[in-house]
Amino acid sequence: MLEDNKTVFHLIGGSADEQDLALTLAENLTEDDSIEMDDIAVLAQAEGIDPVTKEGDESDRVRALVEDGVSVKACSNTLAMFDLDESDLVDGVETVSSGVGELTRLQNDGYAYIRP
Amino acid sequence: MLEDNKTVFHLIGGSADEQDLALTLAENLTEDDSIEMDDIAVLAQAEGIDPVTKEGDESDRVRALVEDGVSVKACSNTLAMFDLDESDLVDGVETVSSGVGELTRLQNDGYAYIRP
Amino acid sequence: MLEDNKTVFHLIGGSADEQDLALTLAENLTEDDSIEMDDIAVLAQAEGIDPVTKEGDESDRVRALVEDGVSVKACSNTLAMFDLDESDLVDGVETVSSGVGELTRLQNDGYAYIRP
Repeated sequence: MLEDNKTVFHLIGGSADEQDLALTLAENLTEDDSIEMDDIAVLAQAEGIDPVTKEGDESDRVRALVEDGVSVKACSNTLAMFDLDESDLVDGVETVSSGVGELTRLQNDGYAYIRP
Repeated sequence: MLEDNKTVFHLIGGSADEQDLALTLAENLTEDDSIEMDDIAVLAQAEGIDPVTKEGDESDRVRALVEDGVSVKACSNTLAMFDLDESDLVDGVETVSSGVGELTRLQNDGYAYIRP
Repeated sequence: MLEDNKTVFHLIGGSADEQDLALTLAENLTEDDSIEMDDIAVLAQAEGIDPVTKEGDESDRVRALVEDGVSVKACSNTLAMFDLDESDLVDGVETVSSGVGELTRLQNDGYAYIRP
C-alpha cells in the first residue's frame, strides 16, 4: 500500500459534458475531507486541450485549480497539432513532451489514474 | 509484481451501451478461469449511477454481481446531485465519500483500474 | 518508483475517431524521446477490436505498431462474440483469455494504463 495519495485526471475528450465532468471530479477530490492528497494532476491532450487554453470556455475553472495547487499539464504534441504555443495556455499550466509519456511517468511514480 | 489480483471498474458514462459494456466486463472477469481474483469492485458515479439504483434498467445484473461477491460502490456526491439516498440503491451497494477519493484509495491499495 | 517504463493502451471504443486517437497515442509513445519504454502494449476488445483485424480500416497502422515492437493483444471473448478467429487478426496480434484479465495482469506487473 502506497503512503502518498497522488492522482492524475486524464482530460482527453472533446465534448463539453466530458470536460465539465473531468474538472468537477478534480474539484471534488480537492474538497474530499476523507482523503489527504499529496498531489492532484490534470493532463490535457487531444480534444481535451481546450479548457486549459486562455480562450477555453472553462479556463476560469482551470485557473482556480492551478491556484488551488493542482498540477495542470498540457501535451506539446497537441499544442503543435492545433497550432498553439505556451502563451496560449492558462498561466501556470506546464507543457510536457508527450501526454502519454507523462501519464506513464506519473503512474510509475505512484499516481492513481482516473479517466472521466 | 503484486501478489493479489484486484480490479476496479469505473462506471461513469450515461449511455446504455457503455453501462452494459461495463457490467459485461465485470461479469467476464468473474468468469475468467485464467486468473484468480482477490477482489473485483465497481465504482459508480455521475451518469453511471443509474445501474446501481433499484429503479435502474440494469439493477438485476448489479444485484447478481453483489451476490457474486463483487464490491459495488456509489459516490455520495453523485447521490446528493441526483437527490438520491442510500435506500434508493440496490441492496448491498456501499456508499463512499467521493468516487475519486475511493478510486485513489483502491489504486494505492493495488487495484488495477479499468474504464470501459 | 518503478524502474521499468511499461504502458498499456485500452482500445475499446467503436468510433473511428476514438480508434484513430488510441493508435496515434501509441505511436506518439514510441516516438517520445524523453522516455525510454521497456514495453508498449495495446489491448483491443469489444467494439475496439476492428483495427486489429485484417479487414479493419486501420490494420496498416496496427501492422506497423507490431513491426515496431508494440505488443498487440485481442480479447478472445470479443472474438467469440463477433464470430472471429485468430486467422482474422493482423499477423503478430496475440489472443488473451479475457481483455479484463489481461489488463489486471499487466497493471499488476507495473504497466501504466491509458484509456484514450
